[in-house]
Amino acid sequence: MHPTDSHRLHAHLIGQQGSRGLLNTPSLSLDLDMLERNIAAMAAFARKHNVSLRPHSKTHKCPDISRRQIAAGALGNCCAKLGEAEALTDGGIDGLLITSPVVTQPAIERLMALNARAKGLMVCVDHPDNADALANAARAAKQLLTVIIDIDPGLHRTGVASPEGVVALAKKITSLPSLKYAGVQFYCGRHQHIEDYSERRKQIIERTEYLKGILDLLAKANLKPGIITGSGTGTHQIDCELGVFTELQVGSYVFMDHQYNICDLRGENRPTFEQSLQIDARVVSRNTAGMATMDSGLKSMATEAGPPKILSGAAPGSTTRFMGDEHCAVIAPEGQDAPALGARVVLVPPHCDPTVNLYDAYHIVKGETLVDIWTIAGRGRSR
Amino acid sequence: MHPTDSHRLHAHLIGQQGSRGLLNTPSLSLDLDMLERNIAAMAAFARKHNVSLRPHSKTHKCPDISRRQIAAGALGNCCAKLGEAEALTDGGIDGLLITSPVVTQPAIERLMALNARAKGLMVCVDHPDNADALANAARAAKQLLTVIIDIDPGLHRTGVASPEGVVALAKKITSLPSLKYAGVQFYCGRHQHIEDYSERRKQIIERTEYLKGILDLLAKANLKPGIITGSGTGTHQIDCELGVFTELQVGSYVFMDHQYNICDLRGENRPTFEQSLQIDARVVSRNTAGMATMDSGLKSMATEAGPPKILSGAAPGSTTRFMGDEHCAVIAPEGQDAPALGARVVLVPPHCDPTVNLYDAYHIVKGETLVDIWTIAGRGRSR
Repeated sequence: MHPTDSHRLHAHLIGQQGSRGLLNTPSLSLDLDMLERNIAAMAAFARKHNVSLRPHSKTHKCPDISRRQIAAGALGNCCAKLGEAEALTDGGIDGLLITSPVVTQPAIERLMALNARAKGLMVCVDHPDNADALANAARAAKQLLTVIIDIDPGLHRTGVASPEGVVALAKKITSLPSLKYAGVQFYCGRHQHIEDYSERRKQIIERTEYLKGILDLLAKANLKPGIITGSGTGTHQIDCELGVFTELQVGSYVFMDHQYNICDLRGENRPTFEQSLQIDARVVSRNTAGMATMDSGLKSMATEAGPPKILSGAAPGSTTRFMGDEHCAVIAPEGQDAPALGARVVLVPPHCDPTVNLYDAYHIVKGETLVDIWTIAGRGRSR
Repeated sequence: MHPTDSHRLHAHLIGQQGSRGLLNTPSLSLDLDMLERNIAAMAAFARKHNVSLRPHSKTHKCPDISRRQIAAGALGNCCAKLGEAEALTDGGIDGLLITSPVVTQPAIERLMALNARAKGLMVCVDHPDNADALANAARAAKQLLTVIIDIDPGLHRTGVASPEGVVALAKKITSLPSLKYAGVQFYCGRHQHIEDYSERRKQIIERTEYLKGILDLLAKANLKPGIITGSGTGTHQIDCELGVFTELQVGSYVFMDHQYNICDLRGENRPTFEQSLQIDARVVSRNTAGMATMDSGLKSMATEAGPPKILSGAAPGSTTRFMGDEHCAVIAPEGQDAPALGARVVLVPPHCDPTVNLYDAYHIVKGETLVDIWTIAGRGRSR
């Protein structure tokens, strides 16, 4: 039995020259050379700045990519949810940090089962009641659970909301013998996508001052964190310059969706990473002058960051527009033709993480040849 | 082996009183009594108006729901894509109409394989080149393929763009011995969500005049269609009053997402169907006054129709806001408390079809008891 529908449809094409052109569309393509260069470039950056990498797997949800990141020096992976951590552990990946709180009773039971088999597992906590619940479960299971305190950088999404609250929670955790206090997390999510480098830098400097104040309080209370984790693809250069984090949670650098590609990541005014993640679509209707309808829509692309960008297959200057659940239009510039019926158009998704979450597998390509199919083991594992 | 992650996590809870409260969240709940009442109500409506039903499965992608629609009198199901039709056929469902053109060579090969085993299969066609390609493939496979001509109602998404084009395509199809001309499709997608009944009615009357003109031309050319298919949950009452369609493609009435719920479907100024599809979420962080963060975000809800609505679990007047891939905030009204850490909040998705496409299974509930888990067999089958 094939592990996914993509394997069922396309496994026989692996290794056949030009086979990318034979794929049923829409299909999620991942350019292997670009992916490997992105992984190597971030690994070299981290070595140069003497910082550890624990890349965020919420972007890729795929043990095959985790293994490549770890082979390049990463400590493990971050996971957004417990379900993703289960999927990566099943895929043989150690060193996982779950970056959201695990709060409900059924989830805490699963966390303990995972902690019993996953090497180096850590979980974020942001509330004393949750610390108690985790400690009770760990004690009952005769386990030691390693926790990281999540600090709210001002997003009000998750995290402890005040410096005093962080110190109090660290004290509480160290008083609970079944919990191990390993460090703090400070993830400035909103800041990652500020397009202008100097504006992003200014805001991150301000937020880092806030973090430093908390670290000073912790040090004074003899609660200096071993791990200080945070950062992202958008701020990794700035964060390393400021030198506070011991490890980086960068995720999207492996794929470089459009949202990140328009951000000047290092103040160098040029792309730092390559757009390895692509959607192959085809024209399935073409009855109106200047436009054509492709077979990829709301069900094969995340929509909250706008329509997709065209990488190839349409006249330069062509744009796209969502046309419902299953379709997207390509609109040719004035005086140009839209792509022909059946023609392939290669798209770049606006936001990679929720787009990946729609697909069962990556079609791994080298140029025009399908070279492998990797299951997206963590797809839909938001529980 | 469990068919889905939902079965693995929750199959042991089926039939246990109050087990809905033990589900790992976010989970997609489907209220069985409401679903069955919706199916029965639309079936009764169709009988009363002497029109056939071939409900659109792009909404639910689930053979268990198809079977209930067919048991209530439906002819079969519509499918948006070939992959969905394969999934429903595997689930034992006959009488499928694929409502988008199947154009590419690999897809046409799969269509022929499906046509050899699927009873009553039909596919839409909107271009003479596609008719030729389908005819050649059917001839080579020694098959007869039944086709429906898709007519563009002005959306410019798919469909033949002119009345003369429809007649020419019908003539062409009848000249190709391996194709059987079964009828026409006319789906006014945009009109379905016009909130005001009389405005929706006015626009549908105008569009129906356009369709009638085409039907007159076809009759004069001795090409009268056997099937005239179209309509949707938003316009079913108006379409039946106008009496042109022989069958209805209604889909969302089974679930009634927020988008449809705010439309006055029958000019009666009251809800016609019940909101059977719900998302169970839980509060996982609560450190800021007046708000709480739930465990459901961009990866468990379609976002293009706005944030979700709250059905229960929060103070009346509470609102929601997306907080990234995995989280959503519930914001209490002035002077009220947000739900407690760990509390369950039941949400209604803004747009059901792409939300369903994110989940592996429905959790079938009767009140607070999980009574079954149904695999969403067509999830992600957009190819």
